[in-house]
Amino acid sequence: MKDTQKKFILPENEIPTAWYNIVADMPTKPLPMINPKTHEPLTVEDMSTLFSREASRQELNTTDRYIPIPDAVRELYKSYRSTPLVRAYGLEKALGTTAHIYFKNESVSPIGSHKLNSALPQAYYCKEEGVTNITTETGAGQWGAALSYAARAFGLELAVYMVKISYEQKPYRRSIMQTFGAQVIASPSMSTRAGKDILTVNPNYQGSLGTAISEAVELAMQTPNCKYVLGSVLNHVSLHQTIIGLEAEKQMAMAGEYPDVVIGCFGGGSNFSGISFPFMRHVISGEKKTRFIAAEPTSCPKLTRGVFQYDYGDEAGYTPMMPMFTLGHNFSPANIHAGGLRYHGAGTIVSQLLKDGYMEGEDIPQLESFAAGRLFAQAEGIIPAPESCHAIASAIRRVKEATEAGREDVILFCLSGHGLIDMASYDQYLAGNLVNYELSEEEIKKTTDSLEKIIK
Amino acid sequence: MKDTQKKFILPENEIPTAWYNIVADMPTKPLPMINPKTHEPLTVEDMSTLFSREASRQELNTTDRYIPIPDAVRELYKSYRSTPLVRAYGLEKALGTTAHIYFKNESVSPIGSHKLNSALPQAYYCKEEGVTNITTETGAGQWGAALSYAARAFGLELAVYMVKISYEQKPYRRSIMQTFGAQVIASPSMSTRAGKDILTVNPNYQGSLGTAISEAVELAMQTPNCKYVLGSVLNHVSLHQTIIGLEAEKQMAMAGEYPDVVIGCFGGGSNFSGISFPFMRHVISGEKKTRFIAAEPTSCPKLTRGVFQYDYGDEAGYTPMMPMFTLGHNFSPANIHAGGLRYHGAGTIVSQLLKDGYMEGEDIPQLESFAAGRLFAQAEGIIPAPESCHAIASAIRRVKEATEAGREDVILFCLSGHGLIDMASYDQYLAGNLVNYELSEEEIKKTTDSLEKIIK
Repeated sequence: MKDTQKKFILPENEIPTAWYNIVADMPTKPLPMINPKTHEPLTVEDMSTLFSREASRQELNTTDRYIPIPDAVRELYKSYRSTPLVRAYGLEKALGTTAHIYFKNESVSPIGSHKLNSALPQAYYCKEEGVTNITTETGAGQWGAALSYAARAFGLELAVYMVKISYEQKPYRRSIMQTFGAQVIASPSMSTRAGKDILTVNPNYQGSLGTAISEAVELAMQTPNCKYVLGSVLNHVSLHQTIIGLEAEKQMAMAGEYPDVVIGCFGGGSNFSGISFPFMRHVISGEKKTRFIAAEPTSCPKLTRGVFQYDYGDEAGYTPMMPMFTLGHNFSPANIHAGGLRYHGAGTIVSQLLKDGYMEGEDIPQLESFAAGRLFAQAEGIIPAPESCHAIASAIRRVKEATEAGREDVILFCLSGHGLIDMASYDQYLAGNLVNYELSEEEIKKTTDSLEKIIK
Repeated sequence: MKDTQKKFILPENEIPTAWYNIVADMPTKPLPMINPKTHEPLTVEDMSTLFSREASRQELNTTDRYIPIPDAVRELYKSYRSTPLVRAYGLEKALGTTAHIYFKNESVSPIGSHKLNSALPQAYYCKEEGVTNITTETGAGQWGAALSYAARAFGLELAVYMVKISYEQKPYRRSIMQTFGAQVIASPSMSTRAGKDILTVNPNYQGSLGTAISEAVELAMQTPNCKYVLGSVLNHVSLHQTIIGLEAEKQMAMAGEYPDVVIGCFGGGSNFSGISFPFMRHVISGEKKTRFIAAEPTSCPKLTRGVFQYDYGDEAGYTPMMPMFTLGHNFSPANIHAGGLRYHGAGTIVSQLLKDGYMEGEDIPQLESFAAGRLFAQAEGIIPAPESCHAIASAIRRVKEATEAGREDVILFCLSGHGLIDMASYDQYLAGNLVNYELSEEEIKKTTDSLEKIIK
């Protein structure tokens, strides 16, 4: 028997005890977020009107390289962490390559995705600070499902605004949230001013993450003892997700290898940051040369075709202004099935890293993403989330490059989640009903041109 | 930080290399299966007209205690095994008990259930014997999904007859099978005589495992180079599933404990056998006193209310006759959401063990099962399959007994699968649309009385 190890798992006492804050190491720090009322850099005070104080502190922490993971969060991490690092022998064989392919399997979380990594600490901080109610938005529902469990685990009441197209495409995720005890509202809804403003103009609007964020923020602002919680984009979310890469680094060492390329799919940036930042430390310090690729959908190409500008995080303009690669906060993405990647902008850290050449964006057409996902499913037995399919497609491109050049590259990607609740999307793919979406220059210009006016 | 270990995982080189064949140890061997044509005990020759030769040999092997796991199967087991043994601290807290609750988490298999444990070796044996096409039935779809991946992994073509009620209730499982490349047919179908015979009499019949088995068997018998593969009930399937309990035994030792009670939900017996038999060895040998409980639905109570008789495994009477606790092969179960537990009979080994007092059956009403499942989900973050909810409900009954008696019992149950693809069932539960089904004596008598005629 070929005695090859397939999975690498850390003992519980090897699970990292602190997250990694890349901002402390960045040669060029990100530009500050701006308070839209004062036009001054955002303070912890400003931010903690909306978010928990600890999340706000983490958001603006530019000095501490490591931030300890609270014991109560570590206890809950143990129920699914470490997630396995897996050598994709099946995929290697299917592709006929000498490259070594690894994936970090975040799909084994009980919720099926990496989102729980940040849901647990954010719910914990709210609880510790005496908050009773929290609100959030969710796109594909991965984040909402994770936060529903986290809220339950810490005894918080949760209201989730779920992007309407996903609410319809992915009813099982709604049920999951309800099974955990959360309240779920399709967004745009008539329950907020932000929702009403859109629905009265465009009654058939299918929703976007930007709109859902506006609704959740508005509810939090108008509800006593209620905080808002976000599942991606922000620095503290990326911070929590670094547990992925910190584990993966130890696990790659168990495998006796080091990645030449690290790949994550990209919506707001949380799983990409999570898998990448711990490896990127060693590039910043000059020890390593590693390539980092953020795989985004061609239909929502903020990294490859967006502009670097101050923009709002939400459609209605309730959030602070952030320096980001963006398509404009009122960009309305096509109804692709990777609901978690339909966000107009990239977080401030990632945007700065992209600007400074530490990472690359790569856009993947929808059909290529599903073809890659199906190939992966047949080769490895795991049906990937439509979002994760983008990372797989990018990894397959790298494998082909390596094979053509006769190189034995070590390729690592993050399998951010499984697609078992996204089977309706696979149905559409198998039935030949899906199309690619390519944006014209005019479409992008329409929503990015308006950004100039936001701030000088 | 309370430094308690939550999960126990075996290193890959500790994954068992052989399955455990309990028949070799049974003081009273099961009565033989009977060839319905000759009325003689079934031979390997008889059986291998339908099944792979190796599965047939394993089925009738009454002497070898351990049967080696082929290397190619072990390689694929590695992608998800060992599955974690988990201490259910969350559930213990929710129940306020001093009992120690453990569950073996088979839901982390890429397909979401234990079914892959037998799908992989069965597909492998077919491939090794030069078979090109296989057929099977599936109830809830867990087995069909697992076999679809296994067939793909070994390059076999697969046709799956899926019980119609599940085909409609669980469309995502159909999509999973199709994504792996299998052909899926709702059963009863017009593609077989068995299906036609039912549909012409009862066009609205929602199907049963018994009927789906008839259809798959008929297709296999009429197709060259095609074998039939079964996901439960038979001895060789239980054999393959013993990997669950063999791992669990090592993992309980890692936890420094030994179970007082071992519980599995019960459809045909595969996951129950898998978790139980390795522990039951030590009861048979007199070393241990352990209680074993098979949790079945009140609506399909073959263990608690069935008769011990020779019966067919399928509705049409194509299979050998087996000595089993049964409700009669033309018993038509209520449309409960635990589709995998809607089978009329119990396997021959389990039936003999029940008769001999080594194990108990316990029936769980549908509403109690979902209440237990939701409590578990909120406490542990994992949404259990409706089938697994029965094991959880039984475990909770044991916890209550222990708590009332002031005992610190160690309770182990098998979480056979997750319920992420069964959310429509949870929706119905949360909406208050589910009911309990209680069978009258007459209903049971109707299908069991006819059994006397089958064999003297």
